[in-house]
Amino acid sequence: MGKLREDLRQYEGCGLASALEAMGERWSFMILRAAFNGLKHFEEFQSELGIARNILAGRLARLVEHGILERTALDSDRRKIVYALTAKGMDLLPAMVALRQWGDKWCQGASTPVLVDSRDERPIRPVALQSHDGRTLDLAELRWKHAEELLELGRSSENAA
Amino acid sequence: MGKLREDLRQYEGCGLASALEAMGERWSFMILRAAFNGLKHFEEFQSELGIARNILAGRLARLVEHGILERTALDSDRRKIVYALTAKGMDLLPAMVALRQWGDKWCQGASTPVLVDSRDERPIRPVALQSHDGRTLDLAELRWKHAEELLELGRSSENAA
Repeated sequence: MGKLREDLRQYEGCGLASALEAMGERWSFMILRAAFNGLKHFEEFQSELGIARNILAGRLARLVEHGILERTALDSDRRKIVYALTAKGMDLLPAMVALRQWGDKWCQGASTPVLVDSRDERPIRPVALQSHDGRTLDLAELRWKHAEELLELGRSSENAA
Repeated sequence: MGKLREDLRQYEGCGLASALEAMGERWSFMILRAAFNGLKHFEEFQSELGIARNILAGRLARLVEHGILERTALDSDRRKIVYALTAKGMDLLPAMVALRQWGDKWCQGASTPVLVDSRDERPIRPVALQSHDGRTLDLAELRWKHAEELLELGRSSENAA
């Protein structure tokens, strides 16, 4: 990807580390996947995932701390707690689906359910990288650029217009 | 996502577990990211990532075992070993980029380099889920469907045609 590179040693920066903490740890991943499948309550997670209560409590607290899940008490019954995906959590969906599609593609496993568009029931596209105008890009077509250079480009094209 | 769900307890099935083993563990992720940035040799990984040799050797072996990296000796110098992404490894790129974009979006961190299309140097699109005809889909627009039902739909539309 050209000469400019990411900082390859950097890991602890809040974004990636917390994404990977959320997705990369087995139980956190399973809780997150269950949340995407509509589970909301402690007891549901516990029985559906078969996870020990103390582990579940710890993982839920961590996901809340990272702003991926939101913990709220139901107005109707203050003892009932709901764990819902925040906008930040919801935004992990493309990464979740990309990982899942990768698993389905590269694995001769049992057939699993397929994600379809509810409008026409046709399977969604494989998640791919696209240019601003929608061309699919592969690794060889990518370059790194400093964010500041992009801002300058933006300014000079505004001046030209 | 409707009544039909994924098997929420399933984890060990080859695809997802190996994707997460590759992406989710800190050093494996860093090695994989470095491979996407063009690193190929043991010594390069070692010096660029600042990773202990025994850990690096173990992680590389695991990635090779999972078919994500391929280990080959250079024809010119059989002692020179190259670790290159396989097609399977290369296919992790959308998931890697989706995670990175998520980190950049939800984090007020230092500005990091941006991925651009080499053709016009404009930033790539955010990774998103799309219908077969390219509409962007959110969680509420997704359903699960059994793979067998899709095959049947395919057959009946062929019959109708």
